[in-house]
Amino acid sequence: MKLKNFFNKRIQNFQALLKKEKIEGCIIDNPIDLFYLTGLRLSLGRLIVTPKEATLFVDGRYFEMCRSLSFLNVQKSALETLKRFLSSFKTLGFDSEFTTVAQYESLKIVTSCDLRKFPSPLKTLRAIKDASELKALKKSADLLWKGFLYIRKSLKEGCSELDLARAFEVYCLKEGASKLAFEPIIAFGKNSAIPHHRAGSRRLKKGDLVLIDIGVVVDYYCSDMTRVLHFGKKNLELIHLEKIVRNAHQAALNLCKPGIKVKELDLAAREEMKKEGLEDLFVHSLGHGVGLEIHEFPRVRKEGDDQDVILAPGMAITIEPGLYISGVGGVRYEDTIIITSKGYINLYD
Amino acid sequence: MKLKNFFNKRIQNFQALLKKEKIEGCIIDNPIDLFYLTGLRLSLGRLIVTPKEATLFVDGRYFEMCRSLSFLNVQKSALETLKRFLSSFKTLGFDSEFTTVAQYESLKIVTSCDLRKFPSPLKTLRAIKDASELKALKKSADLLWKGFLYIRKSLKEGCSELDLARAFEVYCLKEGASKLAFEPIIAFGKNSAIPHHRAGSRRLKKGDLVLIDIGVVVDYYCSDMTRVLHFGKKNLELIHLEKIVRNAHQAALNLCKPGIKVKELDLAAREEMKKEGLEDLFVHSLGHGVGLEIHEFPRVRKEGDDQDVILAPGMAITIEPGLYISGVGGVRYEDTIIITSKGYINLYD
Repeated sequence: MKLKNFFNKRIQNFQALLKKEKIEGCIIDNPIDLFYLTGLRLSLGRLIVTPKEATLFVDGRYFEMCRSLSFLNVQKSALETLKRFLSSFKTLGFDSEFTTVAQYESLKIVTSCDLRKFPSPLKTLRAIKDASELKALKKSADLLWKGFLYIRKSLKEGCSELDLARAFEVYCLKEGASKLAFEPIIAFGKNSAIPHHRAGSRRLKKGDLVLIDIGVVVDYYCSDMTRVLHFGKKNLELIHLEKIVRNAHQAALNLCKPGIKVKELDLAAREEMKKEGLEDLFVHSLGHGVGLEIHEFPRVRKEGDDQDVILAPGMAITIEPGLYISGVGGVRYEDTIIITSKGYINLYD
Repeated sequence: MKLKNFFNKRIQNFQALLKKEKIEGCIIDNPIDLFYLTGLRLSLGRLIVTPKEATLFVDGRYFEMCRSLSFLNVQKSALETLKRFLSSFKTLGFDSEFTTVAQYESLKIVTSCDLRKFPSPLKTLRAIKDASELKALKKSADLLWKGFLYIRKSLKEGCSELDLARAFEVYCLKEGASKLAFEPIIAFGKNSAIPHHRAGSRRLKKGDLVLIDIGVVVDYYCSDMTRVLHFGKKNLELIHLEKIVRNAHQAALNLCKPGIKVKELDLAAREEMKKEGLEDLFVHSLGHGVGLEIHEFPRVRKEGDDQDVILAPGMAITIEPGLYISGVGGVRYEDTIIITSKGYINLYD
């Protein structure tokens, strides 16, 4: 019952959005959005939401299972049924960021109504996490932290990046992760200068910096965190970078509260780097939303479409400044934080 | 050098296809297709292939890495560069099964040329596996078989479907799989009647049938196999189903050789079920192509777009007839086979 209410509430929130945007109805077919709104894990399905109701079209495989949900109308997704259902619509929104050209053409055959682009229709709702989501994010972060401690304990001269990545995965699965949120980035020495390095055959040597960027999925929610460790003697140049990265990280955190625009966080972090003349070594965004997917709306960046998104309670975002010197090494420091009514909670504090 | 030649050859094959189809050029942006043609694992990139050359557009992250590949022209994917490059084209093919409406609109801004739908442009080439791919498929199947033996050995009264699925995953990762090809379907008792059952909390009881549908990824290639086991006393009704399923499986295998249409395999399998009046209990396709993805072209089915696809040496397909009685249980038997010049090789023989 409790769960049902969560989904009911989410559908109501989306219906309110449709009303506000004056949209007669919208097709949801991204499986992650379908899960978010219904709790159903369907590989294929179409939910058509109007300000008044929500109707799910599924094939024979899923029909019986879905029919038991009282907060949804469920229909078999036969072409004729869909055609009849859509015949009363004048306009219909569709997710132009998910729908392929081929799918769009099939839709055009089923309905003659005006199809309106509605890119990632749920992104603003999904950006604000509800209580059940915050609980899952915390659980995911807690397991990830244990996985990080496991890696730290396992660092041994001669072990390869890939060995560690594999051992981390096995450990997290045993501890209850359903899967990894992404391929672990475990980079030794100068490999750490490549922001999206894939764990490979390089073996750990004394004096190597070790960059660890990892995430797991627990109860469907992703975690994301980056730390650097020094194995043996510390490299003074990288220690210097680390200090600046930590300052940039803190400068962004200091601004984390409702009402602030995401671009302000990125600008504050870059300002710390600018002081040292190193801004050019920060080659990616400051962060991104996290939830059912590892990269969600909004991108935390001084430019681009999301720059003016305003922080609000319930948002989960990463803060991950980094500085990279090609051929030498790189440092990134990443936490996932939750915006609260007064400020933020750091999931790795 | 050898590897480079593989990719070179694949690009040449695609260029021959473009010539045959009289297509001036085609954009490849599906990361799996990009990997197939170049060996590069890019999360984002655009390869534009013409009958004479192949040009890869990537962002700063990937530029240096890709530039070292001699069989490709590599350019930075700045809007202006792409605009200039495309200015000489009159028509350009794009993957309408992959490109979203939003991506299509962005493309329209960059070029005024006639964009031609080319759904899954590489599917016919990818369906015929080359020597390196056959080797990887075999390696993946061999590891999967070990994983199956591990599950068989681990069956114990009271263990849950999910426990087994998790233990199987950990075992395969330790043995060298890079990941699972799909979420394991491990179904006890009447759960086996649900073709796409997800492993859950049900515990194993004496007399349960156990359906195991599993796959792993090794060297980027997927394996896929299904078996049923009887835990304790056998259920006579299910034993009867199993006999028919095995007959259907064998009837399809008997036709596996170059020149046969895929629909003939499905029809032959169904014919065996019809003899017993049970055809209606077979509710899915007979099989599908397997390779870099778990479900590839062609779908092995008596109807639909692919029904007339003709078997050819190098094709890797599954043969997986099944019969399901709701509330009682189901039986599926699945092998992955490779079509050879004279017949086929069963990867699980």
